Amino acid sequence: MIEDKSPQRTPIENLGEFGLIDFITKNFEIKQDSTITGIGDDAAVLNHTKSTLVTTDMLVEGVHFDLSYVPLKHLGYKAIVVNLSDVYAMNARATQVTVSIAISNRFPVEAVNELYEGIHMACNTYGVDLIGGDTTASRSGLVISVTAIGEQDAGKIVRRKGAREGDLLVVSGDIGAAYMGLQILEREKAVFKANPQSQPDIEAYSYLLERQLKPEARKDICKLLEELEVHPTSMIDLSDGLSSEMIHLCKHSEVGMTLYEDKIPLDPTVITACEEFNLDSTTIALSGGEDYELLFTIKQEDFSKIKANPSLSVIGHVVDASYGINLVTRGGEQIPIKAMGWNSFQE
Amino acid sequence: MIEDKSPQRTPIENLGEFGLIDFITKNFEIKQDSTITGIGDDAAVLNHTKSTLVTTDMLVEGVHFDLSYVPLKHLGYKAIVVNLSDVYAMNARATQVTVSIAISNRFPVEAVNELYEGIHMACNTYGVDLIGGDTTASRSGLVISVTAIGEQDAGKIVRRKGAREGDLLVVSGDIGAAYMGLQILEREKAVFKANPQSQPDIEAYSYLLERQLKPEARKDICKLLEELEVHPTSMIDLSDGLSSEMIHLCKHSEVGMTLYEDKIPLDPTVITACEEFNLDSTTIALSGGEDYELLFTIKQEDFSKIKANPSLSVIGHVVDASYGINLVTRGGEQIPIKAMGWNSFQE
Repeated sequence: MIEDKSPQRTPIENLGEFGLIDFITKNFEIKQDSTITGIGDDAAVLNHTKSTLVTTDMLVEGVHFDLSYVPLKHLGYKAIVVNLSDVYAMNARATQVTVSIAISNRFPVEAVNELYEGIHMACNTYGVDLIGGDTTASRSGLVISVTAIGEQDAGKIVRRKGAREGDLLVVSGDIGAAYMGLQILEREKAVFKANPQSQPDIEAYSYLLERQLKPEARKDICKLLEELEVHPTSMIDLSDGLSSEMIHLCKHSEVGMTLYEDKIPLDPTVITACEEFNLDSTTIALSGGEDYELLFTIKQEDFSKIKANPSLSVIGHVVDASYGINLVTRGGEQIPIKAMGWNSFQE
Repeated sequence: MIEDKSPQRTPIENLGEFGLIDFITKNFEIKQDSTITGIGDDAAVLNHTKSTLVTTDMLVEGVHFDLSYVPLKHLGYKAIVVNLSDVYAMNARATQVTVSIAISNRFPVEAVNELYEGIHMACNTYGVDLIGGDTTASRSGLVISVTAIGEQDAGKIVRRKGAREGDLLVVSGDIGAAYMGLQILEREKAVFKANPQSQPDIEAYSYLLERQLKPEARKDICKLLEELEVHPTSMIDLSDGLSSEMIHLCKHSEVGMTLYEDKIPLDPTVITACEEFNLDSTTIALSGGEDYELLFTIKQEDFSKIKANPSLSVIGHVVDASYGINLVTRGGEQIPIKAMGWNSFQE
């Protein structure tokens, strides 16, 4: 196949705001019964029969993503997923999203379309409806603001508070991979800058890159817990790193926690990459963010229901607040855990 | 009183994201019964017994506002109001908002606080709860993304579609003032640039400036219509200018409209300012945006209920789509109305 060396670049101003909205939303379909009116009026109309969940996140170019190595389609996908993750972290069903973007004129319509293809793919994968948003010019970088909406019976919603002494601390999947994926991408960017002829050396790291560029939200874990008849006592999603999220659960539940280093689930490629980068894998698991796994506490009596499940790892337990939040190392040493999560305001 | 010549400037990174959120949200109280959980968990929890309305808008520095003449407190107030206006335009009650901001390190904590004082004031004035948001760094300008949520009985919601031939076209308040306020501000900015010692000459224009800097959403009109037992057949709010909004109503309702130039409600200061700037006041009313008045259609039989009301003006009527959308001038001439609303993507 002959590659098209001059891809189409239609200036956004050719379409105008309304034309652009029509263009990017033409493929979106309404799937949820609770969506009465979607895009196209002053406000969307929803008919939720249960409690409504609302969460919102903003992604800023140069702060949350670097377009030199993040494809726009992946970015659109991820922008939706990180918000749905917050709905699942309440043990709720995600149903709708709104997406607002501020985008500079340097992006052609085709680039905006790429972004919305990713948004569309995420909406289809998770079965949520795009019901509104805003599309505006930006004087500099790209900004994406997503609001996710969900629903759940009031009694089934799981909050950050609710963990009790003796509860088990459980995490889904494995952690640290998204952070190591970012390290790989940053390294390849530096290599490329030094020598633009170089070919990226990333095949061995495909799992890490996928976790960074196209993360998934754990809708399946909420379903699994329901099937197992396990109702978490508290829950949060891992966006800022394990240590930071443990501290949130402890603060809201007014408890302490003990985490066992040897129980932290790490993918073998995370361990390999950590060795290569001369990083401590436990530190990465504690401080690296963007895993979007679910971290939750369950009653001890529920242990037998989850223990055989490969998607779930018991990594610690809940203690009285006076014990604080500690890591028990492989050597049996006890070390206080401090928040080392990401702060966008620090350079 | 001796003026403080060195106001406090606390860098945002001193507080970090969570500290900043705690700081700016400490004065916000929950007022709505439907707000079960507000800020502080992965998602807010709402208990709406009626249909839920959702709308969102993004305001970008350098595109939607110019901080050289827009005080941050006013900006915060306006960011909320423009979103609530969309909820009222559905004839619904606004109940909650989320606010996300991307802000550069050049702003001190005190500036963020100013912005949130305006947000707080708007939430109090309109009785809505701040239930969530995101606070992140920005590499350049300030971006504010607001999502407003409301509720209403399904049968009482008013959409853009629904206008029928013979219906009357009604607008609340007066129009064009916000646009002329912007002209005054732009002129004073230019004067100040040329001569920084000059004192702004704005006293005569206080109404115009207030309409631009601190607009109000017409919650009162929804209440008034309910009291008068008038149910609009279609409705929209005036954010992009009368012509553009009339076209939206016509497109959704599949009708045409006739607008009478001599019926357009203009404040005397708008007429004076238009003369001074050598602008045609009808053009300003048609194309100037940001009035946040409500534009709606009612059945002819409801005319007697609204005719004596000083807040409402009948400005035209609905005709068959084949007649198109026209302005009847003071001279009796009929001129087709084209959208001349604002497009942020055009320089």
